[in-house]
Amino acid sequence: MASTHSTSPLIVTAGEPAGIGPELCLALAETEWSSRLVLIADIDMLADRAEMLGKSIRLSEYKASSRRSVGELQVISQPLVNQPDCGRPDPANAASLLEGLRRAVDGCVCGEFSALVTAPLQKSAMMDAGIQFSGHTEFLAELTDTPMPVMLLTAGDLRVALASTHLPLRDVPDYLTTDKLVAVLQVLHEDLIRKFRIQDPAIVVCGLNPHAGEGGHLGAEDQEIIAPAVASCAALGMNVRGPVPADTAFMPDDSETDAILAMYHDQGLPVIKYASFGHAINVTLGLPIIRTSVDHGTALDIAGKGVADVGSLIAAIELAATLAGQ
Amino acid sequence: MASTHSTSPLIVTAGEPAGIGPELCLALAETEWSSRLVLIADIDMLADRAEMLGKSIRLSEYKASSRRSVGELQVISQPLVNQPDCGRPDPANAASLLEGLRRAVDGCVCGEFSALVTAPLQKSAMMDAGIQFSGHTEFLAELTDTPMPVMLLTAGDLRVALASTHLPLRDVPDYLTTDKLVAVLQVLHEDLIRKFRIQDPAIVVCGLNPHAGEGGHLGAEDQEIIAPAVASCAALGMNVRGPVPADTAFMPDDSETDAILAMYHDQGLPVIKYASFGHAINVTLGLPIIRTSVDHGTALDIAGKGVADVGSLIAAIELAATLAGQ
Repeated sequence: MASTHSTSPLIVTAGEPAGIGPELCLALAETEWSSRLVLIADIDMLADRAEMLGKSIRLSEYKASSRRSVGELQVISQPLVNQPDCGRPDPANAASLLEGLRRAVDGCVCGEFSALVTAPLQKSAMMDAGIQFSGHTEFLAELTDTPMPVMLLTAGDLRVALASTHLPLRDVPDYLTTDKLVAVLQVLHEDLIRKFRIQDPAIVVCGLNPHAGEGGHLGAEDQEIIAPAVASCAALGMNVRGPVPADTAFMPDDSETDAILAMYHDQGLPVIKYASFGHAINVTLGLPIIRTSVDHGTALDIAGKGVADVGSLIAAIELAATLAGQ
Repeated sequence: MASTHSTSPLIVTAGEPAGIGPELCLALAETEWSSRLVLIADIDMLADRAEMLGKSIRLSEYKASSRRSVGELQVISQPLVNQPDCGRPDPANAASLLEGLRRAVDGCVCGEFSALVTAPLQKSAMMDAGIQFSGHTEFLAELTDTPMPVMLLTAGDLRVALASTHLPLRDVPDYLTTDKLVAVLQVLHEDLIRKFRIQDPAIVVCGLNPHAGEGGHLGAEDQEIIAPAVASCAALGMNVRGPVPADTAFMPDDSETDAILAMYHDQGLPVIKYASFGHAINVTLGLPIIRTSVDHGTALDIAGKGVADVGSLIAAIELAATLAGQ
């Protein structure tokens, strides 16, 4: 965190070029944000997409010293191997996309950029290219030697972190250990303070089982795994309580809770996606950089049609800027 | 269903006498509902609770032929063994409470009452009395020989049914079978038509795993267990689709969906409890009678203090009356 400079521009990756990422980035030219960010994408691809959509947009190669003006998009061009067909991801471009991501992360680590905002990649295209890519979160953690990245979704004052992410449901109970939960809670606690500037953040920890196990009648993990983790964190001075039944943990206008830790994907995400009308923002905690992303996919079915909603990307940029102190 | 009469009164059980159930029932005297319902409780206990709360309420023994008037509460008295201390459930009263429930169900089955509304019981007091009681739903299913009761929560137009209820999370994947899901979907489909009067109800079925298994990368059950159940139901002419990732299944103002089937407790309930501000209504589908209940517990900590919110009970009564065609 020490290396970020609040006056540096934000860096935005355009994501899968056959998806909606490029057109969302082009739409940023129409916002006041355009002067405060830099894109990473193939500049020719962006120009083609703009032409396809009938948009007249000033695209220029990014130079650290140059002034950026509203309505202009500055681009670090990362050439693709093949120019994309909308809706048809090409595995040949996978390595270039990850190279762009590396360039963005390097820039954030050294302070050239204040925060990273990512448009979605297509996991299947990565895997078809023979690249092990289970998601931005894991890739960014590897790039930055982060031992415990934590996925947080935010929508207004509702913040939901996940203790496990993309695991088959049957693997969740054995994946969770007291040590892991303590590590996740420490990352969550520290980043709520450092990145969200919340003093003494109040964290509610969900149980694993219905009714948080109902005193052991509905599963032992709540008492044997989760309660000791909460106790350890409380002993470290953290403001944390639980395990709480998940169906009472999430309440609208709950001003006493700063974040809720769900034990698994479908315990936490359906609530926040419902609450945000599908406009939650994904923040990766535990990284040495600030990273936010949209909470939608590549939307291959509508790519290149100019109908994709830029609202989520703008929200992700706004949050990144706020976390960067801008 | 054929045996219900839309002009019959609703029957309301007061639930655990050491909890908030009795005072919620007393609060009904202050509503226009009082003339259209009958309580089951120990009438002396109700009189004591009214006195404790400083309420002057007309309590009378129910007689099928007598006129009920607004402000009066008619009671089928089911004597307790011990008069309760608020906040301290007494296992000695367990058998009496279940007897009251039996009386209520018998009255609904024979058409004396149009619908059953239940205040919460304290499971632990039942178990301490040596009675196997895992919940109203299971008890009512047993009383009425119902092979597949289905728990549905409603809040406005959002309806969430559960394919499994009070199971440890690690037991959920093996509990779910294609046959069970077909049976649950048939009950849900039929009762949306019969009780909710929705023609050709549109049902969305959640996946079990994150992203509904992401093509098998995150678990096999979505493709191997759930998809065949959905296909079977579609072949029977039902309007059903899935498996859908749970974090996209729940959307506010989704007028195209009549009900969502969640695979397990914490996949569905956190969303609807959040959406309803804790005022969802629980409806048991598959029974030969109409049964609704509040979606909160006995609240032993505030029992007898007169601060409990009667909103959920009124909502449960209103829905029961609507389902009964009143």
